[in-house]
Amino acid sequence: MRFFEDLQVGQRRELGSFTFTAESIRRFAREFDPQPMHLDEESGRRSLLGGLAASGWHIGSICTRLLVLDGQRHAQAWGPSPGFRDLRWIRPVLAGDTISYATEVQSLRPSGSRPGWGLAQLRYTGVNQRGEQVYSVLTTTFVPMRPPIA
Amino acid sequence: MRFFEDLQVGQRRELGSFTFTAESIRRFAREFDPQPMHLDEESGRRSLLGGLAASGWHIGSICTRLLVLDGQRHAQAWGPSPGFRDLRWIRPVLAGDTISYATEVQSLRPSGSRPGWGLAQLRYTGVNQRGEQVYSVLTTTFVPMRPPIA
Repeated sequence: MRFFEDLQVGQRRELGSFTFTAESIRRFAREFDPQPMHLDEESGRRSLLGGLAASGWHIGSICTRLLVLDGQRHAQAWGPSPGFRDLRWIRPVLAGDTISYATEVQSLRPSGSRPGWGLAQLRYTGVNQRGEQVYSVLTTTFVPMRPPIA
Repeated sequence: MRFFEDLQVGQRRELGSFTFTAESIRRFAREFDPQPMHLDEESGRRSLLGGLAASGWHIGSICTRLLVLDGQRHAQAWGPSPGFRDLRWIRPVLAGDTISYATEVQSLRPSGSRPGWGLAQLRYTGVNQRGEQVYSVLTTTFVPMRPPIA
């Protein structure tokens, strides 16, 4: 799993799960997304989200955390990402929800601009404890190629 | 600026700026994106990013923070976002860089599924202290319509 050459289209990996407690939702929101629906139970209930709801940036940041920690366990070296497409928050994530994240390799190609690097398109998804998809995004990520034998 | 009816295509708003100190970059990365290029100066220099670099999720989360605070100053009520398109991290954001964010209304339409709400497409951008664009994303956001007079 270390290098670009070890990835295959269709490879899927469970990244682990995270429970969005009310306290973790509020702590992220206070710093990065201080909207009432992310800070206060009653405001959340009156909002379109229907309860104290995690910021979308919190949901995505936790996915990144789990991806990086999984990569470290498997010695997978990821590079930076030039961008994302089609990021969707499909259903609200409310206080107490546990989200399980996974990633799947969608496509692979050598980088045209960076010799020694490939570009992987990865789809990340998040599913709640009822099996409902809540999060999906298609990312592009640089992955180092296996170094040539000297 | 309070309601959907107050928005116009082409409206642009400066949201303010943020300096990504080494400490703020590391603090975000430790919790959400613990890759060496976001944690350590020397690892950053050896990476494609060329220095201790902010996580892309940090760059986007700060944009959201500034948008929400600007909205509160102008009594703009934003609702949740069902998703983003075309999110791009165009250049690295390195320790010490100051990013100025802005937003511009791209399109407006009433929500088909949620009476009383409109959908605004907003383009957010971030520019560094040298005037180089580093961040761009096209978002869709629910905005409440003006309540009818009872």
